Amino acid sequence: MSDSIRPVFCVSDHTGVTAEVLAHSLVARFEGWEAKYETRPFVDDRSKAAAVVEEIDRAADRGPKPIVFSTIIDPELRGVLEQSKGFVIGMFEPFVGMLSEELGLDPTEAIGRYHGIADSSKYQLRLDAVDYSLATDDGIGVEHYGEADVIVTGVSRVGKTPTCLYLAMQYGLRAANFPLTPEQLDERRFPDLLERYKDRLYGLTIDPVQLFQIRQKRRPDSPYASLDRCSEEVAAAEWMFRAKRIPVLDTTVRSIEEISATILEQAQFSRRLS
Amino acid sequence: MSDSIRPVFCVSDHTGVTAEVLAHSLVARFEGWEAKYETRPFVDDRSKAAAVVEEIDRAADRGPKPIVFSTIIDPELRGVLEQSKGFVIGMFEPFVGMLSEELGLDPTEAIGRYHGIADSSKYQLRLDAVDYSLATDDGIGVEHYGEADVIVTGVSRVGKTPTCLYLAMQYGLRAANFPLTPEQLDERRFPDLLERYKDRLYGLTIDPVQLFQIRQKRRPDSPYASLDRCSEEVAAAEWMFRAKRIPVLDTTVRSIEEISATILEQAQFSRRLS
Repeated sequence: MSDSIRPVFCVSDHTGVTAEVLAHSLVARFEGWEAKYETRPFVDDRSKAAAVVEEIDRAADRGPKPIVFSTIIDPELRGVLEQSKGFVIGMFEPFVGMLSEELGLDPTEAIGRYHGIADSSKYQLRLDAVDYSLATDDGIGVEHYGEADVIVTGVSRVGKTPTCLYLAMQYGLRAANFPLTPEQLDERRFPDLLERYKDRLYGLTIDPVQLFQIRQKRRPDSPYASLDRCSEEVAAAEWMFRAKRIPVLDTTVRSIEEISATILEQAQFSRRLS
Repeated sequence: MSDSIRPVFCVSDHTGVTAEVLAHSLVARFEGWEAKYETRPFVDDRSKAAAVVEEIDRAADRGPKPIVFSTIIDPELRGVLEQSKGFVIGMFEPFVGMLSEELGLDPTEAIGRYHGIADSSKYQLRLDAVDYSLATDDGIGVEHYGEADVIVTGVSRVGKTPTCLYLAMQYGLRAANFPLTPEQLDERRFPDLLERYKDRLYGLTIDPVQLFQIRQKRRPDSPYASLDRCSEEVAAAEWMFRAKRIPVLDTTVRSIEEISATILEQAQFSRRLS
């Protein structure tokens, strides 16, 4: 193993997603080394903790000292982990004391009370939103548009479906998506159906070259996937978005997460105004 | 506002998801107060930071001191935020110094380099996985099962689709789902098709009363949604899972995130063994 590659263990008493997100954010702050990630979720008893310590120690014997990001809460298990040969960073420790003092409350040792997507009453809301997004994917189920929180539109393969699914799973939004057809694009004819829902409509766009690459994977060498066709469709879609004053988001430079967070913010903002 | 309700601001120069996850995890450690969450994403310049400070100060003037969880990296913007009347917790600060020392590297001030789901080459992998999950949802596309990383099965409304979509989005796994039909359940006849894929098969189960509530919402007062029918189907599914030695996960007590993390761990483990 090259010395510039270091193992990074994300250890959690729960799914490990929080530890991973934090680790990635922090690792991205340092250039000049490469992290090799290992996640160890559900480390919730002494023997599991000891098994992870063994893995960390084995990695340490083979190469550079592993970095260990831990979201483990139980003090006993934390103690076990700290005996390892890794550089252990407890991700909650610095904040628990600060919060405890500020709130004037003692922390509980309860494990895994926050379940993210499944947390509390929002669980069913989010499952319902996923159902809604599937029932209104790709232009189907337009009779349910009255219940939509947002409607996403754009050319084929621009990223409408993953955006809507992410909005549903992460935020519980009812997100429908409506594809612009080749005919509507050729005639620059904005779909009548969408006029009524303009207040909740978002347009996605993309760099034509990237669209070309995505479409080539789906239907190689088809007219649909030609660079000319991709350029024409993107230009026509952007023209219609401008003409109809629909907010546009570019999936070339922004991730699904960023686009979804932006849509959520704008949707809440327009709701506060109306 | 009651004194036991305190505003919690999650402030980020990016989507805010990391700040929210951390805030929820930490808040859950303290009982005896209630947090009222506000997320402010994309706070990436001085005027946006100043606007958030104004909101925090207004909240502080109305009630108890707001708690502010921040994942902002830029030192100047951090300085602006710290002028607020809130109790500001910078979530990366304690760790950047520790890591810098351990790695012998200086941190960069680059913003938003880690894009979560969209990070690096895994982006397309994840979109492909979402496409795969949709193309093999609810028993369709079985001719693609050879490419599946995992196949999830169980009775109607047990949570197969959200589990598969989460596996695809979060982990880039190709996750198909296959519903057990009423006939297969009545005859306790395990689908022939699935025999060949038993090494990648996971069964979902659920408490019959919870299934009853979910189905009542979908088709009220139908035989499909009766408590008797729910109990029979769950018992038959569990019987088949046992007989075929298929690992079973219970969606009653575990979140989609937990179930997905467990499936991922088990799938990787069997792959390491084989």
